[in-house]
Amino acid sequence: METNPCNNPVNAGFKIPDRVSRNTKPEETIVNIAGVEVGGTEIVVIAGPCAVESREQLFETARAVKSGGARILRGGAFKPRSSPYNFQGLGEEGLKLLDIIRSETGLPVVTEVMDTRQVELVSGYADMLQVGSRNMQNYPLLKEVGMCRKPVLLKRGMMATIEEFLLAAEYILNQGNEQVILCERGIRTFETSTRNTLDLSAVPMLKRLSHLPVIVDPSHGTGLRWMVPAMAKAAVAVGADGLIMEVHYHPEEAICDGNQSLNISEFDQLMTDLKKIALAIGREIS
Amino acid sequence: METNPCNNPVNAGFKIPDRVSRNTKPEETIVNIAGVEVGGTEIVVIAGPCAVESREQLFETARAVKSGGARILRGGAFKPRSSPYNFQGLGEEGLKLLDIIRSETGLPVVTEVMDTRQVELVSGYADMLQVGSRNMQNYPLLKEVGMCRKPVLLKRGMMATIEEFLLAAEYILNQGNEQVILCERGIRTFETSTRNTLDLSAVPMLKRLSHLPVIVDPSHGTGLRWMVPAMAKAAVAVGADGLIMEVHYHPEEAICDGNQSLNISEFDQLMTDLKKIALAIGREIS
Amino acid sequence: METNPCNNPVNAGFKIPDRVSRNTKPEETIVNIAGVEVGGTEIVVIAGPCAVESREQLFETARAVKSGGARILRGGAFKPRSSPYNFQGLGEEGLKLLDIIRSETGLPVVTEVMDTRQVELVSGYADMLQVGSRNMQNYPLLKEVGMCRKPVLLKRGMMATIEEFLLAAEYILNQGNEQVILCERGIRTFETSTRNTLDLSAVPMLKRLSHLPVIVDPSHGTGLRWMVPAMAKAAVAVGADGLIMEVHYHPEEAICDGNQSLNISEFDQLMTDLKKIALAIGREIS
Amino acid sequence: METNPCNNPVNAGFKIPDRVSRNTKPEETIVNIAGVEVGGTEIVVIAGPCAVESREQLFETARAVKSGGARILRGGAFKPRSSPYNFQGLGEEGLKLLDIIRSETGLPVVTEVMDTRQVELVSGYADMLQVGSRNMQNYPLLKEVGMCRKPVLLKRGMMATIEEFLLAAEYILNQGNEQVILCERGIRTFETSTRNTLDLSAVPMLKRLSHLPVIVDPSHGTGLRWMVPAMAKAAVAVGADGLIMEVHYHPEEAICDGNQSLNISEFDQLMTDLKKIALAIGREIS
Repeated sequence: METNPCNNPVNAGFKIPDRVSRNTKPEETIVNIAGVEVGGTEIVVIAGPCAVESREQLFETARAVKSGGARILRGGAFKPRSSPYNFQGLGEEGLKLLDIIRSETGLPVVTEVMDTRQVELVSGYADMLQVGSRNMQNYPLLKEVGMCRKPVLLKRGMMATIEEFLLAAEYILNQGNEQVILCERGIRTFETSTRNTLDLSAVPMLKRLSHLPVIVDPSHGTGLRWMVPAMAKAAVAVGADGLIMEVHYHPEEAICDGNQSLNISEFDQLMTDLKKIALAIGREIS
Repeated sequence: METNPCNNPVNAGFKIPDRVSRNTKPEETIVNIAGVEVGGTEIVVIAGPCAVESREQLFETARAVKSGGARILRGGAFKPRSSPYNFQGLGEEGLKLLDIIRSETGLPVVTEVMDTRQVELVSGYADMLQVGSRNMQNYPLLKEVGMCRKPVLLKRGMMATIEEFLLAAEYILNQGNEQVILCERGIRTFETSTRNTLDLSAVPMLKRLSHLPVIVDPSHGTGLRWMVPAMAKAAVAVGADGLIMEVHYHPEEAICDGNQSLNISEFDQLMTDLKKIALAIGREIS
Repeated sequence: METNPCNNPVNAGFKIPDRVSRNTKPEETIVNIAGVEVGGTEIVVIAGPCAVESREQLFETARAVKSGGARILRGGAFKPRSSPYNFQGLGEEGLKLLDIIRSETGLPVVTEVMDTRQVELVSGYADMLQVGSRNMQNYPLLKEVGMCRKPVLLKRGMMATIEEFLLAAEYILNQGNEQVILCERGIRTFETSTRNTLDLSAVPMLKRLSHLPVIVDPSHGTGLRWMVPAMAKAAVAVGADGLIMEVHYHPEEAICDGNQSLNISEFDQLMTDLKKIALAIGREIS
Repeated sequence: METNPCNNPVNAGFKIPDRVSRNTKPEETIVNIAGVEVGGTEIVVIAGPCAVESREQLFETARAVKSGGARILRGGAFKPRSSPYNFQGLGEEGLKLLDIIRSETGLPVVTEVMDTRQVELVSGYADMLQVGSRNMQNYPLLKEVGMCRKPVLLKRGMMATIEEFLLAAEYILNQGNEQVILCERGIRTFETSTRNTLDLSAVPMLKRLSHLPVIVDPSHGTGLRWMVPAMAKAAVAVGADGLIMEVHYHPEEAICDGNQSLNISEFDQLMTDLKKIALAIGREIS
C-alpha cells in the first residue's frame, strides 16, 4: 500500500474489521465457485432469472445465458417477497431444477438462502449461497453460512453503510469461511425514478478497504431493464470483479422482476459491449 | 371513518394489506401481554436494560422501573450486534434471569428473537416476542412468530417504508397471529447528530391505516440519553399507545447502549412528566 | 449548563459556530417581532395561508386565525415553486394586502424573501423576513438579511444537517443581526407517505446547541392536513417555542398547498388542544 | 424513440417538463461554449481548481490541464461556503485572472454565479455560467441566467430528485436560454464514507427524458482524490457527455477541496485511461 497520505480513505472514519481488511491480507482473495474464479483478471458474469418459475423457463434461460458468455447461473428457489401474497418460490423443487440444468450446462449455481434451517438443504444443491439484502444483518444466518464450506455471495443491505457491510462479511469470515464475494446492489435514497440508487463508489471503496472480490447487480440497482446495460458498463469501468444480472427468456411473462430483466438478445448485445470495456481497462470477459 | 376526502392519506399511494388494514377492521386491536393491554386508553410504558448483563443489573433495574410505573419489562438475551466481536447476549441464561424477575415483580417480559430455531425456546420464557429492526424483512422469522401464540412486538426496519412495515406485519397476521404491536424506532437518514431520525409522523400514519397498536422507542430513535425525555413526551402527544425505553441502573457501566439509557432517577422524573401530557390529551399512564 | 458528561451531545461531532452557540451565550435569545416575543415561556403560533391569493382570501383567513389565537400572520407574496408554470405569487401587490390586514388585525406579518434584490422592498412591508428551505444555503441572501434590521425566520433546508443549519444562521448573525428564529420543517428521506419527514429531534438538539428560538412547521413537515394536528401537538410537547401553520378559509380552493392547510374550524380546535399540552409542560399559548 | 413499452421509464412517475423533454425535441441539444461543443460524439473534459486562489496557482494549473487534454477551464471566483468564516473567493479579481489565462490558453472559462446581482458582472468574463448545487432551486437566479445569452452549467442539488432537476432546467429554458448542460455531482444519502453518493444512474435517466447534455463531477461526487479516476471512468462508460474535475498544481496546499483535487500527473494519467474507454463505447476524447 502507498504511503501518500492522500491515499488513505480519510473520510471513511471507522475501523476496518480485521479479517476482511486489506491491512491484514494485502493480496486479493480469489473466490472459487466450482472452478470459476472471481477476483482475478477475468470479470465474471452471473446471469439467470430472478426466480425459478418452471423447468422450461429456467432451462431455456440457462442455455441462453451460457451461450451469451455467463459463467455462473443465478435463480431463486426461496424468494424474499415484501408481501406474503406474492409468489414465494418453488422451494426444493426449484433447487432440483437448478441441479439438473447445472449438470447439463456445466454452469455453477448461486441461489439464495433465507433461513438458518435451510442452509444445509440449499448447500446440498448450490455452488454458492446468496445472502440477500434484507438478511445482511441476519446474524444467525451469517454465522450459519460462515460454518458452511460453500462460497457466499453477500449482498449489501439497502440501507447499510460500508462499515456495516464489512462487519456483516466479518461475521462470515469469523466462522472460518473466507470465500465471500461482496455485492453492491443499490441503496435506498430519496430518489424514486430508479428502484434503488446503485452506489458504484462502493466498488473502489470496498476494494480499497478489503481483499474480498466485489461484484455489482445492476438489475436490482436500477429496477429498469433499459437502464441495466448502461450501469453494467459503468460497473465494469469502475473496477468490479463481476456482475450479477437478471435475464429471462420472456421478461414480459416473468412472475417477478420482469421489468428489470434483460431478454436474451439484450443480454447478448450487452456482453459484446462489456468485453470492449473490459479490454480498455486491461481485464477480460470470457 | 370520515367521508371528507381530505382525510384520505392521499400521498400514501399504496394498497394497505388486508389483514392489518383499518378498512377490514375499523376498531382498535387490543394486544394483551399477560394481562397488560396495549391499544386502549392507557399508554403503556415498557422499560428495562438493552441487554441482560447480570442478575444484579437486571433485577435492580427491573425493580426500579416497576416502581417508576413501567408495566412491562424489556431485556435482551440474544443480541443482534453490528460486529461479531461485540457482546452477543447471555442467551438462555438471560432468559432464565428474565423469568425469575418476572415472577418477583409481576412484570410481563418482552425479549428479542433473532432466529427461527430460537422461537420455541424464547416463547417458553417471554410474554411477548420482539422482532428487531434488522429482521423486519426476515420472512421465515415473521412466519414463525406468526405461528406462535405469543404477542409480537415488531420494530420498523431502519430503512423500511410504511408500506413495507405494514406488509411485514401482514406476514404475521397471515399466519393467524393478530396480537401484533408496531414500533417506530427511528429511520436512517442523512442526519448524523442523532443515531437515527425518530419518525413520529409514522404514529398517526400507522394508526390511520391500521388497527394495530403503535408504540415508540425514543432510546434507539435518538441514541442520546439526554434527548430521550423530550422525544418520549412528543411520542405521547402524537398519539402513541406506548413507549419502550432503555433504562439501566448504572448507564455509564452498561455493556451496550449505555449512552442512550436513562438512569433510575431520570426515568422516574420522565414518568411524572409523561403522566401530565397523557392527561392533557385524554389518556392516562398508570 | 450541567457538568454531567452525558449532557454533551457526543454524537453531534462538529464545532458549533461561535455566534449561534450556547457556549458563547448561555441564556435564551428572545426574538421580538413588532411586540410579539418568541423564545420565552409563551409558545407563539404563526398562521395564515401559504400564498396571498386575493384580498378576500387573505383578510378572511387573517381575521379567523387572529380570533383562534394566532399571534403572527404568515402569507407568501413571492413564492418559490418547483415548476415555472406554477403560480409565482402576487408580488408587491401581495405585500400591500399584508400591510392592510396587519393594520386592521394588529398581527405582525412574516413573508418570504427569495432574492437579494427584494430584501429592501420586502422589509419595507414585513415584520419578519422568511428565508425558505430552498434558500437556506443562498449565502448572498443570508448576508443581505443579516444586514437588515428585521427579525429573520430561517427554515431548515430539506437536505441540511444540523451543522449546516447552524452555519446558515451564523451567516446572518455574523452580519450583526441576532434576531433569528430557526424553523424545522421536515427533511427529505426515503419515506414517501408524508411530503417530508418532520424531524422533531431537531428541536431539542438545536435548543441544546444554540440560544436561538426554534419553531416547527407541521404543514410542510407532513404535507397532510389531517396529520398536522398530531404533529403540532408533538412539537409543543418536544419543546418548540412556536409553530407556523398553513390555514386557509377554503383549503379545497387554495392555489397552493391546499392539501396541507387547515380550515378555520380545524385550526380553532387545534388551538384548544395545544393549550392543554402547553400547560402540561409548564408553558402557555395565549 | 422506440415503441417497446419496456423502454418507458415506468418508475419515473412524473410529467417531464415541456421544454427540456425529449418528447418535444427528440434530437440532442449541442451546447456551444465559445467553440467547444458539448453533447456530440466528443466527451468534453472541464478541469481546473476549485477556487481561483492566486495568479500562479490558476495559471500553472490551467496550462497543465490544457496540456493534459481539458477543453474548458473551471475556477471559482465567488464561492458558496458552508461557513461564513471560510474563504469566500477572490471575487472580481478572480474573474480578471480567469480572463487573462483564457486569452493565453484559448480555453473557454466556466465559473459560478451565486447572486442575481452578479449575473451581469460574471457573464462579462465567463463563457459559461455555473449555477451550483445549493442554488439549484434559487428561482430568481435561474430566471436571471435564463435571460442571459451565455450557456449555463446547472448542477443537481444534493437532495434534488430527477424531476426537480429537470424543472430547474425548465426555468432557464423558459426564459429563452436553451444552452443548458445538466451536471450530476452526487446526492446526499445515509452513506458517509464518501462526501456524496455519485448517482451515475442519473446520466442515462436524464438523457432518456431530456435532450440536454449531461456531464458528471466525480470530484464533488466522491470528495476523495484517490476515487476520482474510478468514478470518472464509470461516468464515461455510462454515457456522460463530459466530466468536470478539480485539478490543482499542489492539492495539499489548496485553500478548498484539496482532498478531492487531482494533481497534474494524476490528471494526465486519467486522461490517457479515459480515452481508451471512450473509444470502447464509440466516442472520443480529444
